[in-house]
Amino acid sequence: MRIVNTGGRLGLVLDDGVVDVATASGGRFGPGVQAVYEQWARFRAWAAEVDPRVASRPLDETTLGAPAPQPRQVFAIGLNYLDHAEESAMETPSDGMVVFTKFPSSVAGPVSEIEVPPGSVDFEAELVVVIGARAYQVAAENAWDYVAGLTVGQDVSERELQLRPPTPQFNLGKSFPGFAPIGPQLVTPDAFENPDDVEISCSLNGVEMQRARTKIMIFPVAQIISRLSAVLPLLPGDVIFTGTPSGIGWARDPKVLLKPGDELVTTIENIGSMRNRFVPQAAA
Amino acid sequence: MRIVNTGGRLGLVLDDGVVDVATASGGRFGPGVQAVYEQWARFRAWAAEVDPRVASRPLDETTLGAPAPQPRQVFAIGLNYLDHAEESAMETPSDGMVVFTKFPSSVAGPVSEIEVPPGSVDFEAELVVVIGARAYQVAAENAWDYVAGLTVGQDVSERELQLRPPTPQFNLGKSFPGFAPIGPQLVTPDAFENPDDVEISCSLNGVEMQRARTKIMIFPVAQIISRLSAVLPLLPGDVIFTGTPSGIGWARDPKVLLKPGDELVTTIENIGSMRNRFVPQAAA
Repeated sequence: MRIVNTGGRLGLVLDDGVVDVATASGGRFGPGVQAVYEQWARFRAWAAEVDPRVASRPLDETTLGAPAPQPRQVFAIGLNYLDHAEESAMETPSDGMVVFTKFPSSVAGPVSEIEVPPGSVDFEAELVVVIGARAYQVAAENAWDYVAGLTVGQDVSERELQLRPPTPQFNLGKSFPGFAPIGPQLVTPDAFENPDDVEISCSLNGVEMQRARTKIMIFPVAQIISRLSAVLPLLPGDVIFTGTPSGIGWARDPKVLLKPGDELVTTIENIGSMRNRFVPQAAA
Repeated sequence: MRIVNTGGRLGLVLDDGVVDVATASGGRFGPGVQAVYEQWARFRAWAAEVDPRVASRPLDETTLGAPAPQPRQVFAIGLNYLDHAEESAMETPSDGMVVFTKFPSSVAGPVSEIEVPPGSVDFEAELVVVIGARAYQVAAENAWDYVAGLTVGQDVSERELQLRPPTPQFNLGKSFPGFAPIGPQLVTPDAFENPDDVEISCSLNGVEMQRARTKIMIFPVAQIISRLSAVLPLLPGDVIFTGTPSGIGWARDPKVLLKPGDELVTTIENIGSMRNRFVPQAAA
């Protein structure tokens, strides 16, 4: 099953187009996208029974917003691919994950324009998980039961603030407005042959920058959920950025930094592509 | 002006008791507490005109919840008092603040019981700011205009996870359930003689542990708001923990750690006291 955010309204993706959920459900589910995660099991049951002849319209990618536009909590995992940890010259934690946040005000859609602040702005293609049920102290073997679905994300990062000595500021440096685009669709785990092994890639102005398979994650999705939920409850609609493979701009020689006019295309197999343009920072 | 969360309903504190806002306003403002920050200016104007003869009831401290129970973003400033930075043996950033988050699921009320997870649990008395209007790229001289009010907070911290090498995990170590109690009242800035200079203290089982004045903060409230808002928008109802003075348990010899049965009382001049008891962690 696949859902989208079409201009702020929840849409169910069928073979021949998008169904407006509020209309098709006769108001059983509201038009808002974020709220659906509060009743995810009921929504899935309803969606499985939707008459395929219901009125749909073509999917217009240019109107898409984030499939989880107002998460209460955004978790992001650092250094979750060995090759990226090596290129970053950072020590990987021996017994635990590196966890930071992208503050929720940074969430944006899959075709959003992203303002480039002063500094050194970089890309990080990531698989993103959206939570479908409250998860607290969940064992890894049950963790996928709490996942609503997967989508594509970019963990856009301003490296100078992120890495500022003596105390790196991951949270702030990765939370400028628009620095957490996600989309274009949320795809449920059952719609993957193997949700732990999908290809992820991104290209900048048509040149490939990153390509990997998610099966090489140090902490796979189920481990991330189990370890986070050992500390605190993950809430319906919460978002997890699961880390990026190698190929980031900051680790290249010479460095590749994002600038106004750049176009970044981020793709995950069986989910789709985000297409984000970078623009000058507006005056305050 | 002072507001409280009385069992989930917004209350206005008057001289002789608490007024239920939804009732007294004839539904102009709903009963929910978090939503009031979305229309804070209108609420303040209404509250200033409330008839002092309106029906009120005595303030029952035992029913109080957090005055900002569901913030979209929680910011916390590390090492914001020189004496605490010294006792922590951490380097203070030369040109910027240390910013982390307490994930919103950790927010609790001023008389809440707090489960003690495994590890080394410690206290940090803090002045807490609640935002009353969207603040983006705000100059320090205007920053107080964006503050709804001030309250008392505890930045409860599990030190082993927080400080785990090689990558300290402030965000997770400070976000166990209940680790961000705030209250008992939210007090507007105009109700202070000087909102930049109030006494903050806490005592554990009746023994004073911390006492300081907020005027010794390295980054005072207006600076914090200006610096955070230079990066991202602060949203109505967002919460900022402004850092703790010296006296934490982890820096003592021998260390003082929180355990089930402990009672922690945290007080700020002109706001009031929180009284949190620590209890054993429940089974999952």
